[in-house]
Amino acid sequence: MRQIEVGGGASYRVTVGAGLLGQLHVPHRHVALIHPEDLPPAFVAQVQASVQPVVTIPVPARDDCKTLTVLAGVLSTLAAANIPRDGAVVGLGGGAATDLAGFAAASYLRGVAFYTVPTTLLGMVDAAVGGKTGVNLPEGKNLVGAFWPPQAVWCDTDTLATLPSAVFREGAAEAYKHGLIADPSLLGRVTSPDFHAGGPTLEGTVADAIAVKAGVVTRDLTEKGERAFLNFGHTLAHALEAVTHHAISHGEAVGYGMHYAARLSRALGGADLTEHTLTFLRWQRPAPLPPLTYDDAAPYMARDKKADADGVRFVLLRDLAQPYLGRVPEPVLRAEFEGWQAEVRGL
Amino acid sequence: MRQIEVGGGASYRVTVGAGLLGQLHVPHRHVALIHPEDLPPAFVAQVQASVQPVVTIPVPARDDCKTLTVLAGVLSTLAAANIPRDGAVVGLGGGAATDLAGFAAASYLRGVAFYTVPTTLLGMVDAAVGGKTGVNLPEGKNLVGAFWPPQAVWCDTDTLATLPSAVFREGAAEAYKHGLIADPSLLGRVTSPDFHAGGPTLEGTVADAIAVKAGVVTRDLTEKGERAFLNFGHTLAHALEAVTHHAISHGEAVGYGMHYAARLSRALGGADLTEHTLTFLRWQRPAPLPPLTYDDAAPYMARDKKADADGVRFVLLRDLAQPYLGRVPEPVLRAEFEGWQAEVRGL
Repeated sequence: MRQIEVGGGASYRVTVGAGLLGQLHVPHRHVALIHPEDLPPAFVAQVQASVQPVVTIPVPARDDCKTLTVLAGVLSTLAAANIPRDGAVVGLGGGAATDLAGFAAASYLRGVAFYTVPTTLLGMVDAAVGGKTGVNLPEGKNLVGAFWPPQAVWCDTDTLATLPSAVFREGAAEAYKHGLIADPSLLGRVTSPDFHAGGPTLEGTVADAIAVKAGVVTRDLTEKGERAFLNFGHTLAHALEAVTHHAISHGEAVGYGMHYAARLSRALGGADLTEHTLTFLRWQRPAPLPPLTYDDAAPYMARDKKADADGVRFVLLRDLAQPYLGRVPEPVLRAEFEGWQAEVRGL
Repeated sequence: MRQIEVGGGASYRVTVGAGLLGQLHVPHRHVALIHPEDLPPAFVAQVQASVQPVVTIPVPARDDCKTLTVLAGVLSTLAAANIPRDGAVVGLGGGAATDLAGFAAASYLRGVAFYTVPTTLLGMVDAAVGGKTGVNLPEGKNLVGAFWPPQAVWCDTDTLATLPSAVFREGAAEAYKHGLIADPSLLGRVTSPDFHAGGPTLEGTVADAIAVKAGVVTRDLTEKGERAFLNFGHTLAHALEAVTHHAISHGEAVGYGMHYAARLSRALGGADLTEHTLTFLRWQRPAPLPPLTYDDAAPYMARDKKADADGVRFVLLRDLAQPYLGRVPEPVLRAEFEGWQAEVRGL
């Protein structure tokens, strides 16, 4: 078992290990448990046994729960169950369910205690730390929410065993990204054959990947500075998700996006890290990209991080663990897009 | 013109005076203006001229705007108008509209800047200061929201001239309450014939009433201690609102509730302040109460502030400006209810 402290405006502990679901400690008399309806019933039963919720609220699977309509139903259920101000909400499941649960906790009675129990690799490494909660609007993803840090996070690595292999590999993208921007020791571990559900290096690798985000968040709670580095690979990733109407999953889009960002970094004089990002893509085996041109993606990239006459702002790497924010001129964006596309299509 | 500083976790200034609507200073390029659809068009036009909103969003009048459905429409409109993270929301209107606008500001993009422009006496004296924002649920009022203090509050006393007299007198209840708990100089001023829209004492009395709440909020931003004193009169008021399904307005319920709390205070050994609270009721001329028994109201009072075997917790007064939290035994609650009812029905 590993424990990671998150500081900054709020302080809480992330615990990573096997068999945690049955050992959660939620010191509130009135607890509401929120989970996706397709979660394995055994997970729900274990958490119910350890936190004794007065109400359990199943929500639609995956991003289908991240709507204001689902939120309204959850809030009414909390009120009907008379969850008081000193009650708590426990969010169990993938990043979507915990994002929804966190925003419900943030807004019910203007805020009650929140606990996160992520059951996907992406949820553990990315969504569980940082305090971002929220839902989507028809106009775009994550446009509504609150910064509402949890009181505690438990990452039970046993839950990862039920994930389809592609979902596990998708989630590894954020762990690899943490390796690139801050902890190069993660790179070989994430792409090692030992890194899989139940594997010998799982707990340590997940914990170290979380520790990178915990460190950044501790130093920069409300996203003014260093926290931007966590967006490495995300500018193209968001564009790929938007262009494909989310036919490409977030983790796969980040895998693709990191390779593009590595190419841009090299083009602007940084070290050549593209062999790392290609190695990751070969390990991740993402779904193939649909036909796509630079002009399809460019408007979304410009929107994502703001563009001006000097180019588009990107998170770039001078070398491993040396991220910076730079502006990339349009001709470089275009040329590297062509080279990137040739490489990732040839994988 | 009077200015009141609010401190605590957030700092902002409340400006009270005539002719402010056309002089608002909102230093953001992208501003959204939210107002009730029944607000006088001249108010909207003046604010539009001074803050140059990129989008103006009318919402249903009074509490009809405080729903998650209306909130969803407002948030989508903000997104469709591309209000960015450094944009701002201006809430113009009564307490309901500014509560909704504040919660939209709190949750859009996880929080953008918020400015309040209350146009009712209740909105100025109560809702505009303290940072509480939110909407209602079918299960109850104000069950969803956020603490999201504004950047600035402008109370244009000219707007009060369009209020129906009963609405003005309703709003005076909170000002009178601030007199009872903290500033006895307000008592005679609120019930003086000079205190009306356009009257000579309006600006100073409104400003002093706001100053009481500003002082409490500055010392107790998140409602752990002293802030509870602002609930003087509210335990019975909430019960009256609930029992009558809000046929009684909040300000009138508070008027009735203050007299009950004054009777309870006297019964537990405090000074006799009931002549003050009766004087206020005679000045306010609230709508008559429907038939009502102690047993109708008691469950709502017990819920409001938590009850246990020792009685129900109430905000009480030892004397003027000497509030405290006390437990009132059930026989006292019942006996004083009968006496209170006889008095207020005889007004």
